[in-house]
Amino acid sequence: MEHIKEFSQNDRFAKELGIELLEVSKGYAKAKMDINDFHMNSVNTVHGGAIFSLADFTFAIASNTHGNISVALNVSISFLKAVFQGTLFAEAREISINPKIGTYEIRISNEQDDLIATFQGMAYRKEKTWKQ
Amino acid sequence: MEHIKEFSQNDRFAKELGIELLEVSKGYAKAKMDINDFHMNSVNTVHGGAIFSLADFTFAIASNTHGNISVALNVSISFLKAVFQGTLFAEAREISINPKIGTYEIRISNEQDDLIATFQGMAYRKEKTWKQ
Amino acid sequence: MEHIKEFSQNDRFAKELGIELLEVSKGYAKAKMDINDFHMNSVNTVHGGAIFSLADFTFAIASNTHGNISVALNVSISFLKAVFQGTLFAEAREISINPKIGTYEIRISNEQDDLIATFQGMAYRKEKTWKQ
Amino acid sequence: MEHIKEFSQNDRFAKELGIELLEVSKGYAKAKMDINDFHMNSVNTVHGGAIFSLADFTFAIASNTHGNISVALNVSISFLKAVFQGTLFAEAREISINPKIGTYEIRISNEQDDLIATFQGMAYRKEKTWKQ
Repeated sequence: MEHIKEFSQNDRFAKELGIELLEVSKGYAKAKMDINDFHMNSVNTVHGGAIFSLADFTFAIASNTHGNISVALNVSISFLKAVFQGTLFAEAREISINPKIGTYEIRISNEQDDLIATFQGMAYRKEKTWKQ
Repeated sequence: MEHIKEFSQNDRFAKELGIELLEVSKGYAKAKMDINDFHMNSVNTVHGGAIFSLADFTFAIASNTHGNISVALNVSISFLKAVFQGTLFAEAREISINPKIGTYEIRISNEQDDLIATFQGMAYRKEKTWKQ
Repeated sequence: MEHIKEFSQNDRFAKELGIELLEVSKGYAKAKMDINDFHMNSVNTVHGGAIFSLADFTFAIASNTHGNISVALNVSISFLKAVFQGTLFAEAREISINPKIGTYEIRISNEQDDLIATFQGMAYRKEKTWKQ
Repeated sequence: MEHIKEFSQNDRFAKELGIELLEVSKGYAKAKMDINDFHMNSVNTVHGGAIFSLADFTFAIASNTHGNISVALNVSISFLKAVFQGTLFAEAREISINPKIGTYEIRISNEQDDLIATFQGMAYRKEKTWKQ
């Protein structure tokens, strides 16, 4: 999965937000984000967009581990607990895959392993593959 | 809605991403985001997290126009068209409100008014109100 | 769209629930369901499953109007108002289509045109077409 | 949880569809549905509305085990595999609860334990409790 390293490094938005890839394997990815002041919303909790982006990064990585280029179709996210500081983790797991569609569940948790949000995403798997 | 100006200005994540509020009224908000290189993902399109964040900003503004503090419970987003450059717009409309729950639809479009993504969100309305 | 009449009549679950197709055109469908006692849940309101099924029927019809066989990938539904009696209507509109994916918004309303629920669905468009 | 037995028996829509409660405990419910011809859609697979309804039944049961009356706010469902015959099972697990909102994940599987669909729901917990 050499292409995944490059894939991850080319994600400028993830870099901007301070998202780091921790682990990757077929259909799986884990990442973290240290919370900074720029992640905050108007009520001084981590912005839903920042939580979404961390999860979305692992979704993109996990769904692109098979060689085909995969793009997000749809995501549903539930926000369960507000976060104020520390580090957030996201872990993406593939729950279903067929030639056209991959489905992933992502859990977002804090350092105490409290569940912060859950994210479910479907990706469309293009026929085009990462450079071979 | 004096509190909305302050609410909007305190959103550091929106500021980081270059999101600007354009219009606001009861249950409604419109914002824009000029696309920069730092919004890009690994396949050189605007990152799903950036699109989500723009929409989420208008969702937060629109759901906080009534005086109560509102927090996001759940969002479903569908990505319809990839974006490479230009300016994105998001427009949030309230489709239902009761004492506890507000529901909003957000359309994300580009300068040509193509529909880029749709976002539907539910917010929980706390009893606590913005300082009066 | 001769195939749509047959498609609609073959839907035994819709028949079981008393769902009737009212209108259909490219990317559009409208249906109704007269509420009976068997649609009720434990708290004497119309069951979420019955509301979903009415909307899903119009989603299936609208997404199959183009000739390709389309199958549901994902749905998000928000329940906005409880219903006790009368007739429910669902109206499906196509908001995006490409060779592989169609996206639809369905509004569920009552006889007073109150919004009861909103449903957004994505369908995968197979290459196989309805018999021509 | 005496009220749950009554709650389950009063669900006329579940009865109409042949849904049976198998197990229930705090925040948990499991049910089954033997597939009949009336569950079928136009392409001879089990209707999305029937799958949704089975899952929704366990969501309602699980979210009402705590004593408060809980009502569905929002559901996202992903359809992973078509089903033609046999028996379907749904299992609801609570993943988060606070005084106002409960969040549940429901897995729908067949007799071979293949994952057929996943369903995530949020419920609003009213202050009113089941008669005590």
